[in-house]
Amino acid sequence: MLRNFTCGELSISNINQQVTLCGWVQKNRKLGGMTFIDLRDRYGITQLVFNSEQNAELCKTAEQIGREWVIQAKGIVAERYNKNKNIPTGEIEILVAELTVLNRSEIPPFTIEDESDGGDELRMKYRYLDLRRNPVKKNIIFRHHLAIEVRNYMNSIGFLEIETPFLIKSTPEGARDFIVPSRMNQGEFYALPQSPQNFKQLLMISGYDRYFQIVRCFRDEDLRADRQPEFTQIDCEMSFVEQDDILQTFEGLVKHVFKKVKNIEIEAIPRMTFEEAMRLYGCDKPDTRFDMQFVELNDTLKHREFSVFNHAELIVGIVAKGCANYSRKQLDALTEFVKRPQIGAGGLVYVVCQQEDTYKSSVDKFYNQEDLKRLATKCNAESGDLILIMSGDTDKVRKQLCELRLEMGKQLDLRKAGVYKPLWVTDFPLLEWDDETLRYYAKHHPFTSPKPEHIPLLETNPGAVNANAYDLVINGTEIGGGSIRIYNKELQQKMFSILGFTPEEAQQQFGFLMNAFQYGSPPHGGIAFGLDRMCAILCDSESIRDFIAFPKNNSGRDTMLDAPAKISKTQLDELGIKSLNY
Amino acid sequence: MLRNFTCGELSISNINQQVTLCGWVQKNRKLGGMTFIDLRDRYGITQLVFNSEQNAELCKTAEQIGREWVIQAKGIVAERYNKNKNIPTGEIEILVAELTVLNRSEIPPFTIEDESDGGDELRMKYRYLDLRRNPVKKNIIFRHHLAIEVRNYMNSIGFLEIETPFLIKSTPEGARDFIVPSRMNQGEFYALPQSPQNFKQLLMISGYDRYFQIVRCFRDEDLRADRQPEFTQIDCEMSFVEQDDILQTFEGLVKHVFKKVKNIEIEAIPRMTFEEAMRLYGCDKPDTRFDMQFVELNDTLKHREFSVFNHAELIVGIVAKGCANYSRKQLDALTEFVKRPQIGAGGLVYVVCQQEDTYKSSVDKFYNQEDLKRLATKCNAESGDLILIMSGDTDKVRKQLCELRLEMGKQLDLRKAGVYKPLWVTDFPLLEWDDETLRYYAKHHPFTSPKPEHIPLLETNPGAVNANAYDLVINGTEIGGGSIRIYNKELQQKMFSILGFTPEEAQQQFGFLMNAFQYGSPPHGGIAFGLDRMCAILCDSESIRDFIAFPKNNSGRDTMLDAPAKISKTQLDELGIKSLNY
Repeated sequence: MLRNFTCGELSISNINQQVTLCGWVQKNRKLGGMTFIDLRDRYGITQLVFNSEQNAELCKTAEQIGREWVIQAKGIVAERYNKNKNIPTGEIEILVAELTVLNRSEIPPFTIEDESDGGDELRMKYRYLDLRRNPVKKNIIFRHHLAIEVRNYMNSIGFLEIETPFLIKSTPEGARDFIVPSRMNQGEFYALPQSPQNFKQLLMISGYDRYFQIVRCFRDEDLRADRQPEFTQIDCEMSFVEQDDILQTFEGLVKHVFKKVKNIEIEAIPRMTFEEAMRLYGCDKPDTRFDMQFVELNDTLKHREFSVFNHAELIVGIVAKGCANYSRKQLDALTEFVKRPQIGAGGLVYVVCQQEDTYKSSVDKFYNQEDLKRLATKCNAESGDLILIMSGDTDKVRKQLCELRLEMGKQLDLRKAGVYKPLWVTDFPLLEWDDETLRYYAKHHPFTSPKPEHIPLLETNPGAVNANAYDLVINGTEIGGGSIRIYNKELQQKMFSILGFTPEEAQQQFGFLMNAFQYGSPPHGGIAFGLDRMCAILCDSESIRDFIAFPKNNSGRDTMLDAPAKISKTQLDELGIKSLNY
Repeated sequence: MLRNFTCGELSISNINQQVTLCGWVQKNRKLGGMTFIDLRDRYGITQLVFNSEQNAELCKTAEQIGREWVIQAKGIVAERYNKNKNIPTGEIEILVAELTVLNRSEIPPFTIEDESDGGDELRMKYRYLDLRRNPVKKNIIFRHHLAIEVRNYMNSIGFLEIETPFLIKSTPEGARDFIVPSRMNQGEFYALPQSPQNFKQLLMISGYDRYFQIVRCFRDEDLRADRQPEFTQIDCEMSFVEQDDILQTFEGLVKHVFKKVKNIEIEAIPRMTFEEAMRLYGCDKPDTRFDMQFVELNDTLKHREFSVFNHAELIVGIVAKGCANYSRKQLDALTEFVKRPQIGAGGLVYVVCQQEDTYKSSVDKFYNQEDLKRLATKCNAESGDLILIMSGDTDKVRKQLCELRLEMGKQLDLRKAGVYKPLWVTDFPLLEWDDETLRYYAKHHPFTSPKPEHIPLLETNPGAVNANAYDLVINGTEIGGGSIRIYNKELQQKMFSILGFTPEEAQQQFGFLMNAFQYGSPPHGGIAFGLDRMCAILCDSESIRDFIAFPKNNSGRDTMLDAPAKISKTQLDELGIKSLNY
């Protein structure tokens, strides 16, 4: 090795030891006759000292060394006069006797510091330099530890990691596939998997009963903020189970991971049906770090003179504790917030609960103090609280109030970093009607089983069918989801027919799976977690990109590689394809 | 759970316990008033018993259950009269009280037995049934354990697993890339990685100093037997190291893996230079389970009347111990063996070492007993041995004799299953001249560093330049290879120029890497192991396909999925490409 210690491990106990370190120059400063270099590697920073009185030539060499140069330094560990208590190696320094420049560096395009002066675009183009920064490094190391802990836990409870293929067949239900032209079978194409869904089901049919895989998945979707065309899933499947068994099993995983990587003990994870989540929080992934549950107010507020409410399908409110002192300006800002096009509400009604059961509201014209008191009682609001009310079509108003609730949570600092509230949301609807294409889509995917007692409804009212489908939500973000699967051919065929497949299309695309169901398929179900997102949530980060070593930008480009890129005509010819854009 | 025990865990200690098992019907047989079902799951087989006297109806149901049906059985554990000592559960059986058919099965297209009656093609089409067979299951589970052990070892010595992207840029040096059309950037293409080579180097430049990844790689090559278009690599890289550090580090990994998954203690792994391996074994991946080293015989056998030898560049022989008794027929067969077109030798000379220093040879006309005695001495051959000699151009004859040596090893049962002889082959040449395209190719890849002392030769005699490149060979199969890398821009540019790149081409394809070298690149090197092949070698299997859950055939097809396949015109249009074969 070119070194015998790292820059993160020497301490007072190594005094007088002869050591060789390698690393990058973080800082180089001259102080009188002394030159100090902060040498950095993956493990920390160690101070190197050069004394011009003792070795003028060496000191001169040291002076000329710039930021990010790679050097090797041999010397003796000494105790520092000015100790730096902020870093583990802050009590020592190296009196350097020998110095080798292993490689020079141009001046980096941005500072390699916790707070860099480089913008996002520049840092992505030079991602290899961005990766040197502590905050990014911490994330990459965190991800490694998380993956190790997941694997060891899954192994400890009998799950086998089994690799599934990446060059598969395109099955254009759901998101768009990336496709790969076949050279050996011209005119034919592979697709990259959106998930190993069918393979893990086949593995259940093969009897592997507990499968997992940390695996890359691909979706050729128009990228919203914080979506990547390739992402990593913790993909799991089990046989001979019901919904409750899966929730139990993976509650174990969640607890293990939190304990191991965050040293946090997670309590039993609460469960809530989809219907309940929509009713109480207006969305299927509520942030339960704070309550502020919805109160439905049709009975309380309809049948007065206020026609907006009288015409609304749903009147629904939340209570912002202790916000009675909100100024007119603040209240107006909340109204503006819900009226923004992204939210699109018509307006916002507020009721201020003042001292001694008196109320002030934006609808005083229509409701007397008696009405408002009844309202406050219904909402469990006390004096000092602020009630915020919206109305409209059920689905829309829930979504709008959900946004307002999250905004209030933010304003009241109720969405605290470092607090983690996992939640199982269960019993999702099987299907979703799309008004545009006038057809049903699978809410989860076409392999999700209806609840057995709802199977008859498939014929009469498919929209009312629920599934044993579940999501794991933490702090308002979905980090995993799964379902109990269909495991017989007839039901799967029925499902495809509801989704608008002809029997031929279904057979052509998913025949391998439906055939497999005929050879002894066990009842099975599973779940998949987004690893990138799990990392982000556990580290209180907004962006999954922070946890991906080489991410792509929102146009699906890797600006460091400059990919995608044109390829040679020879390559296209060999594949028997022609680009219409050349 | 639909079960509270598996079919592999009940024993005499569970007698009288009430249990519920689930699994597949391996066998169903009627014996008098009794019906016996062998129930199979991932963990084993348990015998179920139905007694028609006790419950005629249940027994009748049981009788009708066919092979591979999935059932749930509840009952009491009882001691067997006829114990089966061959299986762990052979001392007990379940007296079934309740039976549920979870799913039926068609009659499987081949038997689900250790020795199946299904041919290769049929088993691949129904791979999900093939995967139920014990030998395949054992392999898949073995692979899981191997991967776990590799990961935990690498983690324990400070390596970080870091995921690298799959959608990258095509760099058509080396094998052919699979390419992926970009929809969002039409006319441009991603490529799937042949290995994460450049990314792991960038990670070294980023300071991650110990990286590994178990990662899928892709090569669009015409498939020889036992090659797959997608395969899995244990990919590793380290900074601040020299060749010896890498060999030491990964010797540790090899020892750990052998100990953990095979319970075999591996001695220090011997090292041999490429030159030595070629000279002593005629190939760069010798099977060192047996000696039978080459003896070069120019000095001993030239300058007699035998013009074949006199005109040969190299005369070289091996000694087959104890084979003096080979019959004329056997000797002829050996001659036929080396004359086969795959080997292409002109002939084979043999010398039989008889009793009391007498010799019989196929070249008695040209060599007297004195000559042959000298030959035997040179070869260390004793009476009872057989000397086999070939001659010709050095490279060719070494290759031919290498094949003969392996054949003799096989005939003499010297290539024993269960014996493992790892070997480091080092100091590979940097470049290989290709007579067809009249250019040099990188022997390892373009990022391999020449030995520092050979750098001047790059100008004058590139073919003579050696590299700090190394392979790990076990029993004649290369299972890993790596090198110390180039880490400065000028040398990398020089390397590309020797490989026939214009400076513009080099910059266009690998500019990101050469730029990165300018910002403080540490000395680094690494290695990659073939996981599929490592599994195969450790399990004495010929085929990597046996260790891949869903492999492709030699035309790159997945016959189970029927992939690759045609895709819709809509998909092609969206990508802006046209297939010339539609």
